[in-house]
Amino acid sequence: MDGSIKPTADQQRALAARYGQAAPAAGPWNPVIDCLLQHRSVRGYKPDAVPAGTLETLIAAASSAATSSNLQTWSVVVVEDPAVRAELAKIAGNQKHIEQCPLFMVWVADTSRNERLGIAEGKPLEGLPYLETFLVAAIDAALAAQNAVVAAESIGLSTVYIGALRNNVPRVAELLKLPQGVSCVFGLCVGYPLAGREGEVKPRLPQHVVVHHGTYDHSEEHDHRATYDAAMSDFSARHEMAAATWSERVIERNGTVAALRGRDKLGEHLRGLGFPLK
Amino acid sequence: MDGSIKPTADQQRALAARYGQAAPAAGPWNPVIDCLLQHRSVRGYKPDAVPAGTLETLIAAASSAATSSNLQTWSVVVVEDPAVRAELAKIAGNQKHIEQCPLFMVWVADTSRNERLGIAEGKPLEGLPYLETFLVAAIDAALAAQNAVVAAESIGLSTVYIGALRNNVPRVAELLKLPQGVSCVFGLCVGYPLAGREGEVKPRLPQHVVVHHGTYDHSEEHDHRATYDAAMSDFSARHEMAAATWSERVIERNGTVAALRGRDKLGEHLRGLGFPLK
Repeated sequence: MDGSIKPTADQQRALAARYGQAAPAAGPWNPVIDCLLQHRSVRGYKPDAVPAGTLETLIAAASSAATSSNLQTWSVVVVEDPAVRAELAKIAGNQKHIEQCPLFMVWVADTSRNERLGIAEGKPLEGLPYLETFLVAAIDAALAAQNAVVAAESIGLSTVYIGALRNNVPRVAELLKLPQGVSCVFGLCVGYPLAGREGEVKPRLPQHVVVHHGTYDHSEEHDHRATYDAAMSDFSARHEMAAATWSERVIERNGTVAALRGRDKLGEHLRGLGFPLK
Repeated sequence: MDGSIKPTADQQRALAARYGQAAPAAGPWNPVIDCLLQHRSVRGYKPDAVPAGTLETLIAAASSAATSSNLQTWSVVVVEDPAVRAELAKIAGNQKHIEQCPLFMVWVADTSRNERLGIAEGKPLEGLPYLETFLVAAIDAALAAQNAVVAAESIGLSTVYIGALRNNVPRVAELLKLPQGVSCVFGLCVGYPLAGREGEVKPRLPQHVVVHHGTYDHSEEHDHRATYDAAMSDFSARHEMAAATWSERVIERNGTVAALRGRDKLGEHLRGLGFPLK
């Protein structure tokens, strides 16, 4: 596929939806990039099944993502049992879409496979108990899952990540019979949006705020934040969201330990699941 | 874009390249999915510049990825200075492509922006010092970067992640003048491959090994690994790679603490950079 630098109407619309007035000038563009820009998280699903072969296609996309040293320290558990779905929804603070969506996947950091390999080959892996090894596994899972998300959205499906499964990773491990050395990183709902729940592209911080040249420089951040707060305030009003501005949202989510909803114990929980995080 | 379940010659070729004899049956397919399946990491670059506007397009794709609670706890530093590139290449174990490629980006976990926000608003964020908050930031960076990779590859550019920047995150922080609460997660080279360095799609573990239904089940893993070891042995022979089978590669990379090349100190290093990882 090729990139063209002529700005098209589609491109200008997509960039304006993502950045509002702070949209950057036109760069290369094509249908893949348009698909990426259209992403929105969906939290209400029809019961309609996904097309035959969807899981295989999503996993083929996931397997095609880069993985650190080809270690492939991720796995995925597909959950269909309604009773287990209900338990997972409860862990995630009653997110009903976990029960609704036709395809629900739990993406896991998995060093157990390589541990079994080392034991079978008579070479126990000394590198496993480190924070680095857990982080690689979590990043592997994230890169794989993001490719699956892009593939899903390209065939007209919607998705939403469920980070709130980390509220209680030991309980998730118990429900899915995860061995030691495996922990859920996040869930992912896949399906067709309910009418009226298709969502709207959410504005993001201007590129000037997240991109730095040469060295890190936040000297203009404060002014950009004010502009973004106004854009997010408009967005929130359209969607009846609780926190009005972005700043309020950040303070709500990271302001208190209680807002972590149990995830303040993640380190302790991961150690219990066989990740010493040395 | 729409998905069709008729297997095309392109699809069969792409799945065979990724999985060998263990390729799954055909599922939905389109040019976006084909682009994802074609991924290969490239470690030798021409000096040719990327097209005008490429950075803006890659960041627009990155910004469009999901981010936990819209916290957007990632940033990116674009490094052009050849002296800094040389230092980064050295940290990463002399990976020359860091110096060669026309666009080099360092993706960082960044909770400092939200910390500044909290301070400016008179609401210090109690949720920041937790492992969970660092993990969210690293996952945010990974999802964003993967969208940038997909966008880059869709316009004919190649990429490779540089996880080895984690060999020495304090030195990377010093070179890029990262404030406390910011740490490199990985680097990313972007550019056009040198002739003969385009790479070949690398086979991955069969889907049966990474996908579990209902509960985690590794009962057939051992046999699948033998088949995959044979496929990777062929691939390694074609590419003059040191470790012959996949099992040997895993044992080489995770077998000893020395093979972590300094990353066994990641926890200590991150604490020094302002991530208490509680």
